[in-house]
Amino acid sequence: MASVADASLALQAALRQVSTEIDRQFDLLLAIPDDPRQGLYRAMRHAAIGGGKRLRPLLVFGTAGLFGVNRNAIARVATALECIHVYSLIHDDLPAMDDDDMRRGKPTVHKAFDEATAILAGDCLHALAFEILADDATHPDPFVRVELVGALAHASGPSGMAGGQMMDLEAEKASFDLPTVTRLQAMKTGALISCAVESGAILGRVPPEGRTGLRGYARDVGLAFQIADDILDAEGDEALAGKKLRKDEAAGKETFLSLLGLDRAREQARLLVDQAITHLKPYGAEADLLRDIARYTLERDR
Amino acid sequence: MASVADASLALQAALRQVSTEIDRQFDLLLAIPDDPRQGLYRAMRHAAIGGGKRLRPLLVFGTAGLFGVNRNAIARVATALECIHVYSLIHDDLPAMDDDDMRRGKPTVHKAFDEATAILAGDCLHALAFEILADDATHPDPFVRVELVGALAHASGPSGMAGGQMMDLEAEKASFDLPTVTRLQAMKTGALISCAVESGAILGRVPPEGRTGLRGYARDVGLAFQIADDILDAEGDEALAGKKLRKDEAAGKETFLSLLGLDRAREQARLLVDQAITHLKPYGAEADLLRDIARYTLERDR
Repeated sequence: MASVADASLALQAALRQVSTEIDRQFDLLLAIPDDPRQGLYRAMRHAAIGGGKRLRPLLVFGTAGLFGVNRNAIARVATALECIHVYSLIHDDLPAMDDDDMRRGKPTVHKAFDEATAILAGDCLHALAFEILADDATHPDPFVRVELVGALAHASGPSGMAGGQMMDLEAEKASFDLPTVTRLQAMKTGALISCAVESGAILGRVPPEGRTGLRGYARDVGLAFQIADDILDAEGDEALAGKKLRKDEAAGKETFLSLLGLDRAREQARLLVDQAITHLKPYGAEADLLRDIARYTLERDR
Repeated sequence: MASVADASLALQAALRQVSTEIDRQFDLLLAIPDDPRQGLYRAMRHAAIGGGKRLRPLLVFGTAGLFGVNRNAIARVATALECIHVYSLIHDDLPAMDDDDMRRGKPTVHKAFDEATAILAGDCLHALAFEILADDATHPDPFVRVELVGALAHASGPSGMAGGQMMDLEAEKASFDLPTVTRLQAMKTGALISCAVESGAILGRVPPEGRTGLRGYARDVGLAFQIADDILDAEGDEALAGKKLRKDEAAGKETFLSLLGLDRAREQARLLVDQAITHLKPYGAEADLLRDIARYTLERDR
């Protein structure tokens, strides 16, 4: 067994490796064409390349890595998930939505370009995600590809991420209780995090009945991540975070932090991480990356 | 052979039948949930139900009908394509894009609801399209489903519809020549029209090498449709069209009309329709619906 210090170094190495690979995939995918779409491609590259925690790709690598899946297939599926994540950030940052000027330490897409380009860049990354998954270069088995498409479409649509974002907009007008905030977050950020783990299991050809532990892990990591995000929003450093903080309180939104208080929120996140790791009991050292990712949700500063 | 008058009646019947079926599919798909996402679902219903020419669904029905495909599969694929078309209309109408207040005789989504809801309603319909196609209720063969996903993702992304929309935004700043306007329109509206025909061929299990005629038909119909749209924008009745007209000229955009003049544009559209019908020579009376659709692109008033 690796010690915590070793594990942390291993995680750092994995983060670097995955970030480099995702950047490489986006660089190939988003080669700037020699026609009037250059602004569109530059906007997509601005948002997609060289930034972000790459948490969802890391979870695809961590999960698919349990089953010895081909690394090219993992990288393509991880990139498809990151396409969806990046498109959602571009659209969420728009003036009509969260109206953010900074993201990942850079101007948001509608600030660096314009609103129309930002809307289209998001729409294009959205479509690209499914184009990547449907391509036989991703996986030779159409059953695997179509299952990946179904999982990602469900996780990102009205029953998942986009539905959660709609609830989040309503949260400014209503006063949600803890079960409603939990459901909102399970959809808004949890669904895509769960989809990253699910995609790793699909690539590993784990049948649905064999995915219970991994699904439990993903659910707990997703919630712990969101609680940590709420704490970061209230206590974090804007320069380190690379974006505007203290927004939930200003908007009068109920969050895990406002509903639980700082001490209980921290305690709850720690319990969730322990529980996530317990779900990985059937796996040996090959699941150490997933264990490290679970612990990392609490330690991150951005 | 049916006479033109009969054909027109047959087309009217097909239009009514397909419109009713697409409305029914959307009604089932977009049942309003009992939670804070109600506004989101009402916005999607506002845009998707009870309006539009349903040209793309009609093309899926017309093409798949050549090969005796199960009608439920056709209806689901046609609905997925219409999801993409409707999402693109919602986003194109946004203030940052074409800034339109009316669509299909009703207020646009951001007018009837708000901009944030419109952005999310578009994003949700976008995801739903792929969720429908990936579902095994659409077609039992994963090869067929994943080919449909790949075709639709390609047709709607940066190499297709959304890329064409980006070129269209640039058209206000530049002065495009005829080949560039042709390419722009082949992407902006042509790609999804071609995808409707392609999807019918995929459902009909026509191998790619057997699709040449149908692809030629789709390309010609798409261009004829766009030329007719340009003419409608310049000459049409806003009340009948249900949307603002005379916008291209106001924006100083080059169109088929501005580049060719009215007489040559009309002549070109007629030639394209004849050519589209010629591509259907290998087919008998079973292709009459596709022939009628080609003629209809010139006759429509909205």
